[in-house]
Amino acid sequence: MSQPEDSQGRYRVVDLIRQKREGGALSSAEIRFLVQAYTRGDVPDYQVAAWLMALVLRGMTRQETAALTDAMLHSGEVLDLGSLPGRKVDKHSTGGVGDKTSLVLAPLVAAGGVYVPMISGRGLGHTGGTLDKLESIPGFRVHLPVPEFRRVLEVCGCSMVAATEQIVPADRKLYALRDVTGTVESPYLICASIMSKKLAEGTDALVLDVKTGSGAFMKREQDAVFLAELMVETGESMGKRMVALITNMDQPLGRMVGNALEVEESIQVLQGGGPEDLRELCLELAAWMLRLGGAAPTVGDGRKLAEHLLAAGQAFRKFVQLVELQGGDVSTIHDPKRLPHTKHEVEVASPRGGFVRAIRCEQVGTACVVLGGGREKKEDAIDPAVGIVVHKKIGDEVAKGEPLATIHCHSQAQGDRAKKLLEESYDIADAPRAGKNPLVHRVISKEDD
Amino acid sequence: MSQPEDSQGRYRVVDLIRQKREGGALSSAEIRFLVQAYTRGDVPDYQVAAWLMALVLRGMTRQETAALTDAMLHSGEVLDLGSLPGRKVDKHSTGGVGDKTSLVLAPLVAAGGVYVPMISGRGLGHTGGTLDKLESIPGFRVHLPVPEFRRVLEVCGCSMVAATEQIVPADRKLYALRDVTGTVESPYLICASIMSKKLAEGTDALVLDVKTGSGAFMKREQDAVFLAELMVETGESMGKRMVALITNMDQPLGRMVGNALEVEESIQVLQGGGPEDLRELCLELAAWMLRLGGAAPTVGDGRKLAEHLLAAGQAFRKFVQLVELQGGDVSTIHDPKRLPHTKHEVEVASPRGGFVRAIRCEQVGTACVVLGGGREKKEDAIDPAVGIVVHKKIGDEVAKGEPLATIHCHSQAQGDRAKKLLEESYDIADAPRAGKNPLVHRVISKEDD
Repeated sequence: MSQPEDSQGRYRVVDLIRQKREGGALSSAEIRFLVQAYTRGDVPDYQVAAWLMALVLRGMTRQETAALTDAMLHSGEVLDLGSLPGRKVDKHSTGGVGDKTSLVLAPLVAAGGVYVPMISGRGLGHTGGTLDKLESIPGFRVHLPVPEFRRVLEVCGCSMVAATEQIVPADRKLYALRDVTGTVESPYLICASIMSKKLAEGTDALVLDVKTGSGAFMKREQDAVFLAELMVETGESMGKRMVALITNMDQPLGRMVGNALEVEESIQVLQGGGPEDLRELCLELAAWMLRLGGAAPTVGDGRKLAEHLLAAGQAFRKFVQLVELQGGDVSTIHDPKRLPHTKHEVEVASPRGGFVRAIRCEQVGTACVVLGGGREKKEDAIDPAVGIVVHKKIGDEVAKGEPLATIHCHSQAQGDRAKKLLEESYDIADAPRAGKNPLVHRVISKEDD
Repeated sequence: MSQPEDSQGRYRVVDLIRQKREGGALSSAEIRFLVQAYTRGDVPDYQVAAWLMALVLRGMTRQETAALTDAMLHSGEVLDLGSLPGRKVDKHSTGGVGDKTSLVLAPLVAAGGVYVPMISGRGLGHTGGTLDKLESIPGFRVHLPVPEFRRVLEVCGCSMVAATEQIVPADRKLYALRDVTGTVESPYLICASIMSKKLAEGTDALVLDVKTGSGAFMKREQDAVFLAELMVETGESMGKRMVALITNMDQPLGRMVGNALEVEESIQVLQGGGPEDLRELCLELAAWMLRLGGAAPTVGDGRKLAEHLLAAGQAFRKFVQLVELQGGDVSTIHDPKRLPHTKHEVEVASPRGGFVRAIRCEQVGTACVVLGGGREKKEDAIDPAVGIVVHKKIGDEVAKGEPLATIHCHSQAQGDRAKKLLEESYDIADAPRAGKNPLVHRVISKEDD
């Protein structure tokens, strides 16, 4: 076992671990040394694993969190989009079931004149990922080299891509280690991971959609608020304009869960339709993005502008342009029936009459994974065609035998596994649930609305 | 990164790490799986590092501590000394400066008719190690194969050796990892490490010397008591007779610090002389060892027996026999001037007159390391001849310029480095410190005294 030092011998890794173990704060220089040396391969996994666990249990100060974010950000290439006019704006969601807002927001906000450089991720566990959804459009390329990403962004106003190997290599290495050492669930590490990647893409402002509820990673609202405040403060300390919306994830967003199905539903919203909750959340997020990007003086103005861009078809046309520029088959956007579809459908009938009182939303996501529409392990391939169409949501009345959902699958046997999970997901009671469950719980920001 | 499972796939290591991270207790089977799989090389260092850090910060239940001790114990060979009559007894010290009691106790208690199978360690940091001291006797072999260890024990009544590779391999692997991951300082891990090694040597009873004070690993008495209670309870739950003495380590024990010097001082005690504090602690520990070993009905009787064995020369003769059986040059025991000595001596003069109020005892140990008499790193070689003779101890009156200590070294330059440390170690005041500082603070045991 070695004890690596920096080239000047200033830091002993074991001392830094002990410092965090005792609840002390590391200096920015110490954190930078650790992240740089680990990324280079000069500090072994076992020392970083011990440090990560100490950090999970002892927490970090705001200054440490910002230093970690900054050190990770500068572990690789940082895009400079200063040549494009105005403030660049992006959105990040902590992940949910049926959350396809990115597909609507990038073209919608770009149509409003604000550049949206969007580097997205893939689905893992019960939540879907924007890249997987985009790849269900035949031909759509998410792996663009940086010059092409810039060109699409310049021409179209938005581009949606995967991170290159050059972007935040520290995060890839740290995430792989966290995954196997029980150190994923730390708001400080989650914040640094998200923020370093978002800042590396050259954005000036960031709208965060922090989800809470039965389908979110953070089941408790207080945990979502803690993470949201941490990310807003970290971004602000690094000179970015930040806002976080705490939003409801007690049930799937919209009605469709599955990759091609979610593209189809996004197109509905971009054409001025779509389910009410999905449209509403897209408008709220777009309003803030337009406000922070300088295209609207207030959030209210931003919302009116977004409504207009949807109604006038400008957002939809921007999406068509984006798909075309990134190599996708535009005919599938004009006619979503041409997107990948399964031949088989299985109905999930309600076992009784009554009102939908609750939905185990994470389990709906798991049902989609079971169908092959998501990943249990990072290596798993994705089936773009499978998915679930939800007919009944919280508060809806349902008769015995009436369909709660329809499963899009390739065979009866495949559908039956998902069916069981979906049947168990629904909680049907004699009376509807009392009280409201708003879509947007809170807005956390120092910005004017 | 892999996620190893046991052969039946019952345990996912990452789940066990998360369980401990959340403060939960692992079952004995889960702990056994982790220790076995790690020792085999089936679980990577980084997962165990994260688990160790979670354990340091979350603690362990008594049942978990016993399960960890048991799993480590059974990671290798466990000696069965059942063929030797009576209860086998050993002593363990948590380490201090000038602590040479083992060298006195093994022959002293064996002379009283109780078998003492003693597997000892080497010095690390500011504390010395029994094996290093024994090896300053020319020819003395500490690496005996198990059959020879048994034979010496059978013939002599005691044997003092290093652990073989077959004894508790899990501890060697875990300790190397703890050393570089900031997970050394956990009473649970210290307890399991000590107890597994002591129980593997086939002892039936164990007397623990848990040191507290400026020269001990545990500076605060409450920490020493916590560890002592943990070890006593763990040993008792595994069917062993246990006692722990909390003893003072605010200053070096006896007057000599350094390997050959400490052998010399041990011989003084074995011959009925030696400094009062060292002799006193040896008698207290021997009394308990003779009591637990069944050679004395009470601790008071044990003490009288020990005093007699020293006065009558039986303890000294037993030591001579032990040295002879393990290949050491017996002439050095009869004439300690023949032990390794330096040619050079440097005096540390008192900068002022007054009373010794306190000694930074850890720094005295560090002065010996600086001379080459101890180890900073495990690979460091030991110089048997160097060391420090302490002339003034706490409460002693001293005149300006009077020697506080004498440094045994090979050159003036070498001595000067240690001299500075020793000068800084002494706190000399106008008046002596009020209040007593007893050698034995507390006795922790369920045994009658």
